[in-house]
Amino acid sequence: MLYRIICRTIGVIMLIEAGSMLPSLVVALCFRENPLPFLFSIGILIVLGLPLALLNRRSGRFHSRVAYITAGISWLTLSLFGALPFLFCGQFPSFIDCLFESISGFTTTGSTILTDVEVLPKGILFWRNFTHFIGGMGIIVLTTVLLPTIGDRVQHLMQAEVPGPTSEKLVPKLAQSSKILYAIYVALTVLELLALLCCGLSFFDALNLAISTAGTGGFAIYNASIAAFASPAVEIVISVFMLMFGVNFSLYFLILCGKIRDVLKNTELRFYLTLLVVFVILITWNIYGIYGNLGDSLRNALFSVSTLISTTGFGLADFDRWPTFSKTILVLLMFTGACAGSTAGGLKLSRIYMMLQSVRRELRRIVHPNSVSIVRMDGRAIGERTLSGTMVYLGTFVVILFVAIWLVSLEGHDIVTSVTSVIATIGNIGPGLALVGPVGNYSIFSAFSKIVLCLCMLIGRLEIYPILLLFAPSTWKK
Amino acid sequence: MLYRIICRTIGVIMLIEAGSMLPSLVVALCFRENPLPFLFSIGILIVLGLPLALLNRRSGRFHSRVAYITAGISWLTLSLFGALPFLFCGQFPSFIDCLFESISGFTTTGSTILTDVEVLPKGILFWRNFTHFIGGMGIIVLTTVLLPTIGDRVQHLMQAEVPGPTSEKLVPKLAQSSKILYAIYVALTVLELLALLCCGLSFFDALNLAISTAGTGGFAIYNASIAAFASPAVEIVISVFMLMFGVNFSLYFLILCGKIRDVLKNTELRFYLTLLVVFVILITWNIYGIYGNLGDSLRNALFSVSTLISTTGFGLADFDRWPTFSKTILVLLMFTGACAGSTAGGLKLSRIYMMLQSVRRELRRIVHPNSVSIVRMDGRAIGERTLSGTMVYLGTFVVILFVAIWLVSLEGHDIVTSVTSVIATIGNIGPGLALVGPVGNYSIFSAFSKIVLCLCMLIGRLEIYPILLLFAPSTWKK
Repeated sequence: MLYRIICRTIGVIMLIEAGSMLPSLVVALCFRENPLPFLFSIGILIVLGLPLALLNRRSGRFHSRVAYITAGISWLTLSLFGALPFLFCGQFPSFIDCLFESISGFTTTGSTILTDVEVLPKGILFWRNFTHFIGGMGIIVLTTVLLPTIGDRVQHLMQAEVPGPTSEKLVPKLAQSSKILYAIYVALTVLELLALLCCGLSFFDALNLAISTAGTGGFAIYNASIAAFASPAVEIVISVFMLMFGVNFSLYFLILCGKIRDVLKNTELRFYLTLLVVFVILITWNIYGIYGNLGDSLRNALFSVSTLISTTGFGLADFDRWPTFSKTILVLLMFTGACAGSTAGGLKLSRIYMMLQSVRRELRRIVHPNSVSIVRMDGRAIGERTLSGTMVYLGTFVVILFVAIWLVSLEGHDIVTSVTSVIATIGNIGPGLALVGPVGNYSIFSAFSKIVLCLCMLIGRLEIYPILLLFAPSTWKK
Repeated sequence: MLYRIICRTIGVIMLIEAGSMLPSLVVALCFRENPLPFLFSIGILIVLGLPLALLNRRSGRFHSRVAYITAGISWLTLSLFGALPFLFCGQFPSFIDCLFESISGFTTTGSTILTDVEVLPKGILFWRNFTHFIGGMGIIVLTTVLLPTIGDRVQHLMQAEVPGPTSEKLVPKLAQSSKILYAIYVALTVLELLALLCCGLSFFDALNLAISTAGTGGFAIYNASIAAFASPAVEIVISVFMLMFGVNFSLYFLILCGKIRDVLKNTELRFYLTLLVVFVILITWNIYGIYGNLGDSLRNALFSVSTLISTTGFGLADFDRWPTFSKTILVLLMFTGACAGSTAGGLKLSRIYMMLQSVRRELRRIVHPNSVSIVRMDGRAIGERTLSGTMVYLGTFVVILFVAIWLVSLEGHDIVTSVTSVIATIGNIGPGLALVGPVGNYSIFSAFSKIVLCLCMLIGRLEIYPILLLFAPSTWKK
C-alpha cells in the first residue's frame, strides 16, 4: 500500500511538472530559442508519469509517516526530472551539475554551479527561476497545511476558517486552504512584478525576479545578480518583498479575514521584525566606514539582512568583504531563517523563539525551584511535547550540520568555505562566505561534495525528517 | 543569609588560596627568585580573607541555587586573587592580562596572553600550572558531588558507597567522597610525574607537566609547549594521561571498589573510547601525506585528539596547517569535551550521547507513532526531565556561543579566529585555529575581548548556570 501511494505520488508530480514546464516552453518560443529541451522533458514526464498516476489509489488513513515520505518523494521527483531541461540544453558541465541546479531551484536555495548565467537561453533562465516559484508553492502548503511539525502553526489557519475542526471536514477544508494560500502567493508575486515594472525593469527581468523572490530562492539572471540593475529603487522593492515572503502566509490569510489584531499579537512576527530592526541598525553602524554615507550603508544593510533572513540569497554587496562583526550576524541569520509557514528556509524563528524561552525558563527554575512557568506563543501555552520536539529538531540539525561539514571538508577547501557552504545549503540560502560568497559559486566542488550539498538542500527544505525517513531502513520494512 | 554565606565562602576560598600559594613560594625560594610576589599575595589574602571566613555560618538548608552561586563566587574569588602574583612579578602587560591568565588557569583552559613564557620566573611558571591543578580539584568535586546537573551522574558514586542514600547521611558521605576523589586525583598525578621522570625529564619539568595535565589545563613551560621536548615517549605518556584525566573520576572509584563490570558497562566511557579510536584513525589517514610515515602520523593524531577531547590544549603539531577535514574533526572535539565528572571541559560526552539518542528516538517516533521508546544510559532509563534539561543546556550553550562570537568579532579579526577563540575558551581547551592556533596566543585581543573570553572560560567551566545566575537580577532580590 505504501509503495502504491508512492508510485501514484511520483506519477502525479511528474504530470504536474510537465504542465509547469509549459510557461518556460512559451518563453523559449517567444525568444525564438530551441524548444526541444522542454519538449523532450515534457514528453518523458508524460510517458513515464501517466501510467503511474493512473494507478488506483486505495483510500486509507493518511498517517503522518506517509505524509513525510510523500513530501520527500515529491521533491526528489521534481528535482530529478526538473534537471532534464538543463541536461538537454547542453550548457551544463555534467548531469550532477544539472541535478544540483534543479535541487537548488526546487528547494528555493539558489546556490548555483554556473560561473556565467548570462549565456543561458532565456527559456532555461526562466525555468531555473520557475523552479523556485513551484518550490515555494509546495513548501507553503506543506508546512502550513500538511505537516504542522511546529506546534500550533496549523491552528492559525483552522482558527480563522472553521469554528471547530472535525475530522470529516478536515480534508476538503485543507484543499480549500491550499487554494487560498496559493491565491495569496500569486497575488504577492504579481504585486512585486508590478512594482518592479514601475522601477523601469523589462517584463522578462521583472517576472524572473518576482518569481525568484516569491520562492525566496535567489537565482539571478545576471552574473552580478541584483547589483546588475544599479537601481536603489529595485533594491528596496526586492528587500521589502523578500521580507514579505518570509512572513507566515497564514497571517495574510488572517488579514483577509479581518483579524488584524491577531496578526499584531503574533509572537513570531514580532520577533522577526525586532531582529530585522536590530540587525539592520547594527550592520549599518558597522559598515558605515565602508560606504561613507548613511543612505548606502542602510540600503546595503537592509538588503543583506533581508536576503539572508528570508533565505533568498540574492547578491548585492559582497558582504564577504564586510567586517567580521557584520559577517557573524549574517551567518547567524543563515541559521535562523524567517517565519514558519513562509517560503523561507532555515530553522525558523518560532523554533529559535521557543528555544530562547526554554533557556529562560530553565534559568528561572534554578533561581526559583518551585516556580511553575509556561512557555507561551501568541498568548497560548506551548506543550512540553512541542518544546522538547523543537529542541530535538535543533539537535538533529546540528548533528547533520557537522556530518555534512566533515564530508565537504574532505575536499580540502578552507574551513570558512567548507562550513558556510553547508550552512548556506541546509538553510536554503544560496551564497555563503569565502569561495562560496556572493561573488563565488559552487562550481569549485567535486561531484561528491555536490551530492552532499544536494542532500543538505533537501534536508533543510523539508525540515529534516522526510529525507531522513527515506533513508531509514525501518521505513521500508513490511 | 545569602550574603552571609557568600562572604564566608569568599573568606574560606581566600585562605585556601593563600595556602595553595605556599608551594609556589617554595619553588621561588629554591630557584633563588624574588619571593615578594607570593609573600605580598599571601599577605593580602590572609588580611582580607580571615575576617570574612570567621563570619558565623548559620546552618540552613543548602538549596541548589546557593550551591550554584557559591560555585560561581568561588571561581571568581580564586581567579581575582590568583592574578596577584602575576601582577606583582611585573612580567605581564596589564592587570587584565594577569586576570585572563589567572582565569585561564583556574578554569583549566590554558589560553595564554604571553608571547614568551620562558622569561617568567620558575615560581610564577609553577603557580600558573598549579592554578590548573587547583581548578581541576575543584571541578571534580563540584561536578561529581555537589552539582549533579547531568542526570544520573552522582548516582554512580552513591551506588558504590551507600546502599540507599538517606538525607541525613548525605553530607558526611559527600565529604568522604570528596576525600576519596582527591586521593585518586593526586595518585594519578603522581603516577604521571613518575612516568615523565622515567622519560628523562627534569623534576621541575615533569612536575609542571603533571599538574597541568591533571587539571586538563594546558599551560606550557616552554614556548614550543610539548614539542620542546622532542620526545615521542613524553608525547605518548602525556597523551595517555590526558585521556585518563578525561574519564569520570567516579569510575576510578568504582574500580577501587572492585566493580569493574559496572565500569565496562559505562555508556559514556564506551562512547569516549569509540570516538577516540574513530577520530584517531580518520586523522591519521588524513595527515599521512604530511608526515609520510604511519608512526608519526598516528602519534600526532593521537596527541591532538587527546589534547582536544580532554580539553587540555597542549601544543605539539601545528594542526592549524592540517587539512580542513582534520581541522573540522578537531573543532568538533572542542565542543564535545570528554566525560562528565572529569577535569575536562566542553559540553561533556554524556550530554552529546543523550542528544543523539533523543534524535534517534524522535525518528523512531515518526516511523512508528505508537511506539514507546526510552533513552537509556548505563542500562538505566533516563527521565524526560533530564533529557529536556540536557537539550535546553545545549541550547543555552549555543546562544551564549553566538553572543560571545559577536562581541569578539567586533574587533575585526578574521572569522576563524573570532569563532574558534570563543569555542576554545568556552570549552576550556586553550588553543583554537588561525591567530589563536597552537602557535598563536591571545595577546592579540583588546581588553574588551579578553573580558568576554574570561567570561566564556568561567561560563564553560562552571557549566553555564552558576555564572548566569550571578548576573540574574532575580538572584539578588530579597
